[in-house]
Amino acid sequence: MNRQELVEQIRKKKSVLCVGLDTDIEKIPSFLLEKEDPVFEFNKAIIDATHQYTVAYKPNIAFYEALGVKGWQSLEKTISYLNEDYPEVFTIADAKRGDIGNTSARYAKAFFEELNFDSITVAPYMGSDSVQPFTGFKNKWVILLALTSNPGAFDFQTQKQDDSDEMLFEKVLEESKKWGNADDMMYVVGATKADYLRKVRNIVPDNFLLVPGVGAQGGSLSEVMENGLGAEPNLLINSSRGVIYASNGNDFATVAGEKAKELQVQMSTYIK
Amino acid sequence: MNRQELVEQIRKKKSVLCVGLDTDIEKIPSFLLEKEDPVFEFNKAIIDATHQYTVAYKPNIAFYEALGVKGWQSLEKTISYLNEDYPEVFTIADAKRGDIGNTSARYAKAFFEELNFDSITVAPYMGSDSVQPFTGFKNKWVILLALTSNPGAFDFQTQKQDDSDEMLFEKVLEESKKWGNADDMMYVVGATKADYLRKVRNIVPDNFLLVPGVGAQGGSLSEVMENGLGAEPNLLINSSRGVIYASNGNDFATVAGEKAKELQVQMSTYIK
Repeated sequence: MNRQELVEQIRKKKSVLCVGLDTDIEKIPSFLLEKEDPVFEFNKAIIDATHQYTVAYKPNIAFYEALGVKGWQSLEKTISYLNEDYPEVFTIADAKRGDIGNTSARYAKAFFEELNFDSITVAPYMGSDSVQPFTGFKNKWVILLALTSNPGAFDFQTQKQDDSDEMLFEKVLEESKKWGNADDMMYVVGATKADYLRKVRNIVPDNFLLVPGVGAQGGSLSEVMENGLGAEPNLLINSSRGVIYASNGNDFATVAGEKAKELQVQMSTYIK
Repeated sequence: MNRQELVEQIRKKKSVLCVGLDTDIEKIPSFLLEKEDPVFEFNKAIIDATHQYTVAYKPNIAFYEALGVKGWQSLEKTISYLNEDYPEVFTIADAKRGDIGNTSARYAKAFFEELNFDSITVAPYMGSDSVQPFTGFKNKWVILLALTSNPGAFDFQTQKQDDSDEMLFEKVLEESKKWGNADDMMYVVGATKADYLRKVRNIVPDNFLLVPGVGAQGGSLSEVMENGLGAEPNLLINSSRGVIYASNGNDFATVAGEKAKELQVQMSTYIK
């Protein structure tokens, strides 16, 4: 998916909502466990109930890998379902990969070509040649970790570099501008650090930001919308648990749809 | 596997060789493509031919993921074969994972419990709570990226921190001492930067180091052995392409065995 298609979808749905498919076999309603592929059935129901209010879906790859071959099959079915039934939504493989060049190239092949995701999250620690193999695929995106939403983000990401006031995540943003542009690179910036969003927007005013940590992790939606939204609606705000596990009963999909709609309504006031 | 068992195996085989199973369907001998699972058949033949000289095997997870469900099946068969037929060798999932706490916990479950690897490589960018879920499994190890062997390593890892002379990789080593110890944490330190090995050894004298980049990537085996080996033989040196693709013919396994033996003979002179 290219930038224009994504922006158009955001304007049409008046939403920047990304729903995180952190699908946990231990948390899904028990009646689904009788189905042949409970994880896929759960995802399918969630997608059907939320897609009107949602512009992106983000399967969290760890949850699928934890189930081995069976999990990988559920992942393949989920991404195929999205690509076939809802081709207008943006898809994110939340994989946080990053390795030496020939290995990163393999991951790019896995997620962009085999599975046909629109984007993948990538960790920056190994530098340029670990990230660049993910760029250069037509209409595919790298989503680079800049400032994450977890407590450990302060261990290294906010360390000052050299004798300057520049923090590591700012250095990552600056360096990575050489590797991609606003049409093929996004950044992960945690909502729990909304006051940093202005710093981020100073360095990358045009790039899309993927913002996790709203809701369960404590970030404020309004602060993110106010500080993170550029001239174009170049923001994706993720909610996982707050939407997909809003109910544990037979009505889980309906309630997930209601939660997604609540978020969309809040978002809509900021989107012109 | 615990530290004592690993050290004993190193002393017995007089080797610190780790063979990287970066098994690429496009590079393996073509006659294997007729088999039901060419990737597993290749790995099995390589393992059978090299195990006498080898103390660890390191499947590079990207190469398996790139093949989807089929690749994941080949990976499961490979780790099962190692665990059943060669329980004395140390196994490394070269996955370079790292995510927020509940997600890292899923990856730990996938690689330590579902697949039963002894260890997994982990990226440090997201800090403490992204790494700690991998610790605390009995006889399992975290192998944390410190200084990698690729050119991009100089983008962030060697950046000076604050007003000090401390580089990011040194900061990672220092911080991570709070998260684990020499019995459950190792570090990746690229052989292409052998002069940095002394710096690393000043900070973590006892921890095992996993050293990639000997051979194809240009690192010198003797320099690594001289600067990296502690009082105990606490080193693993990886070779992937130099061993597994030494021949592309029917004799690929035999030639891989010869290459592994050559490396073991060089290593043996340093191991008391």
